[in-house]
Amino acid sequence: MHKIYSPDKNTWPALLQRPTQTVADIEGVVLDVFNEVKNQGDSAISAYTQKFDKVILDTIVVSAQEIDEAKNVVNSDLKEAIRLAKSNIEIFHSAQKTAKVSVETSNGVACWQEKRPIQKVGLYIPGGTAPLFSTILMLAVPATIAGCSEIVLCTPPNAEGKINPAILYTAELCGVTKIYKVGGIQAIAGMTFGTETIPQVYKIFGPGNQFVTVAKQLATKFGVAIDMPAGPSELLVVADDTADAAFIASDLLSQAEHGKDSQVLLVSTSKEMIELVEKEVDKQCASLPRKEIATAAIANSKLIYVENDEEALALINEYGPEHFIVCVADEDFYVDNITNAGSVFIGNYTPESAGDYASGTNHTLPTNGYAKQYSGVHLDSFMKAMTFQKISAVGIQQIGQAIELMAEAEGLQAHKNAVTLRLDSLK
Amino acid sequence: MHKIYSPDKNTWPALLQRPTQTVADIEGVVLDVFNEVKNQGDSAISAYTQKFDKVILDTIVVSAQEIDEAKNVVNSDLKEAIRLAKSNIEIFHSAQKTAKVSVETSNGVACWQEKRPIQKVGLYIPGGTAPLFSTILMLAVPATIAGCSEIVLCTPPNAEGKINPAILYTAELCGVTKIYKVGGIQAIAGMTFGTETIPQVYKIFGPGNQFVTVAKQLATKFGVAIDMPAGPSELLVVADDTADAAFIASDLLSQAEHGKDSQVLLVSTSKEMIELVEKEVDKQCASLPRKEIATAAIANSKLIYVENDEEALALINEYGPEHFIVCVADEDFYVDNITNAGSVFIGNYTPESAGDYASGTNHTLPTNGYAKQYSGVHLDSFMKAMTFQKISAVGIQQIGQAIELMAEAEGLQAHKNAVTLRLDSLK
Repeated sequence: MHKIYSPDKNTWPALLQRPTQTVADIEGVVLDVFNEVKNQGDSAISAYTQKFDKVILDTIVVSAQEIDEAKNVVNSDLKEAIRLAKSNIEIFHSAQKTAKVSVETSNGVACWQEKRPIQKVGLYIPGGTAPLFSTILMLAVPATIAGCSEIVLCTPPNAEGKINPAILYTAELCGVTKIYKVGGIQAIAGMTFGTETIPQVYKIFGPGNQFVTVAKQLATKFGVAIDMPAGPSELLVVADDTADAAFIASDLLSQAEHGKDSQVLLVSTSKEMIELVEKEVDKQCASLPRKEIATAAIANSKLIYVENDEEALALINEYGPEHFIVCVADEDFYVDNITNAGSVFIGNYTPESAGDYASGTNHTLPTNGYAKQYSGVHLDSFMKAMTFQKISAVGIQQIGQAIELMAEAEGLQAHKNAVTLRLDSLK
Repeated sequence: MHKIYSPDKNTWPALLQRPTQTVADIEGVVLDVFNEVKNQGDSAISAYTQKFDKVILDTIVVSAQEIDEAKNVVNSDLKEAIRLAKSNIEIFHSAQKTAKVSVETSNGVACWQEKRPIQKVGLYIPGGTAPLFSTILMLAVPATIAGCSEIVLCTPPNAEGKINPAILYTAELCGVTKIYKVGGIQAIAGMTFGTETIPQVYKIFGPGNQFVTVAKQLATKFGVAIDMPAGPSELLVVADDTADAAFIASDLLSQAEHGKDSQVLLVSTSKEMIELVEKEVDKQCASLPRKEIATAAIANSKLIYVENDEEALALINEYGPEHFIVCVADEDFYVDNITNAGSVFIGNYTPESAGDYASGTNHTLPTNGYAKQYSGVHLDSFMKAMTFQKISAVGIQQIGQAIELMAEAEGLQAHKNAVTLRLDSLK
């Protein structure tokens, strides 16, 4: 791992750079798939499923029977674990409900804000080696609490045309209304335009590879919203001498095993801790099944020594980590002053993997420095804040003249007229 | 105006289509400006200001002296109107503050959500014929309440290199920290990359022409967030026989005067009301200074008769209007059941222009059907929801096994290890 001691502030931008991604060159492929799916619907979906997933399906709709079979296949310990996680995620996201905000801004001028669900949402769950049923919990649970009436899930079939049972079990448990065996760019295109089979949705959520990421970006040009721009996963740990080096190394590695482009950083005011963590990483990494991936990610990663907590905080806020673990004596300093982080894990018994699965917080979080301006997925991600106003005769007499003056100053006479007519009717 | 009677549901998509925009052909221009500003900073800004705004400036920074002069120029009635509007907007947006959400999801597992301000935001205010100081109120007031530490404003200079005094007065009143005389694509590029003079921001807000709209879309590819995708302004009124045709016509025209591509719709269960409104629109339009614009917009617009309230509601939710005026006997039916609208105006004394200026609600709203999935600008638009979790030794013993099982089932051994190490240390 790279070790950096007391880096000068001028070097921070270079030091904190994420592993670069090249996106431009895959835009052409994505646009082609979008055009085909838009124009040819299901038949384009079938063709791309055959091409990319190497399977020909009679139907892309998952049947009730397949779901029943999945329920029997998933072992009961895992089911219980999933139900515990679901319960915690429900508790935390239900608590995020906001009441109607209602005020009388001037006498006779009632204004209120209400949040209403996005009616149709689409969830994308990648296939591949790891069946990410945990992401279904993170998306379908808040969608259900929000009251979304249509919750569609797309996930790629394997070479036998099947979906991992844990995915089907979790999807049904969490209130997904329809499951389709479609993956990759064609899944995002299908939910963007709708096909004979796949419904068009208003907002698409979920992780994916670079192709899916670019497809989601493109979807926004066709009137669909997305949860957030996605990038490789990342973790930053701040630790002093009170931390446990083995725990920290395990956290760094849990992030590093996600992908070769993952990035993990340790920031510490203790040179000893940096040495200890480095040794522990080497030791623990050797026995991981995904050792090769983790080793590559560790090569992108840095151990950074800084002189004091103020310097550490400034550097962390500059980076804006997706996951931020705080293992220091003075936790409050970091917790109170962190401005840019997706989710914060505090203390020696709060591994990042707790938030990935079962603490109750959401694991769909802003990467790539987006913690500076984006929230992670939360209940409001599935709702829209709408405003309402009702003005009485008294109310328009209170604020009407101000509107007339402002509309006139902006050169918008018809805006003024709409008030003048009403004021005149009350004379 | 086009009159349509009892349209069949199959015809709704065509009927409710917005005036089309062509965006693709201006992307090249926008990308060129972005590249120049990224590489050459201030000198590119100067060159484009000379090219597009026909003026050479010594400095693009608005001085304290210019602001002082503006304060003396704006007349006191207008100042008072702006202060009244500001007060109402403050009251409504302050009421949107949310408390920390804190729960214990399992014994020993504390999770909380806090909203923290986006530190650096950029506001874009167009120039042109109408000096939109009202939009400064709508953006800078909530940014200040949210606690954004840097609130940058860019607006184009006129041919004399000056900014409208009402813009400067309002910007200073609302806590804008820096004002720059830069407009169009180059302003968005400047705030995206930062220049020697213009600070880089994390999120850009505000309206603009098609060039600005495309520039904001492009900015999202460079790590900047935007308030929402923008389109031409629009208004839908639902009215029955209890409505006042003159008031409704004045509302339709106030939206129509925004631009030739604005769209206004009347949906009514009363054929008489449709006739009355049509006549009133013709009458009122004739005397408007922006008659030419309003007439063109009215040509895009429709008067739609439907059989009953249920049909009306379904059609309105399908359209998802930016502004929705409800002038009917049974207001509650529409207010309770509308799912897709930006802002709702209820009753005969609630003109849409009230929300544009002074009721307290925000006028930066989703157009183009985006009310289906986007909120208008509100307090949270300037904040990020961050999550925190602190798990005790008891807590990790509660949920640790579930995490281990789930991580293993997803094939992520290092995620499991991070928990196992901690559980072992407690044995």
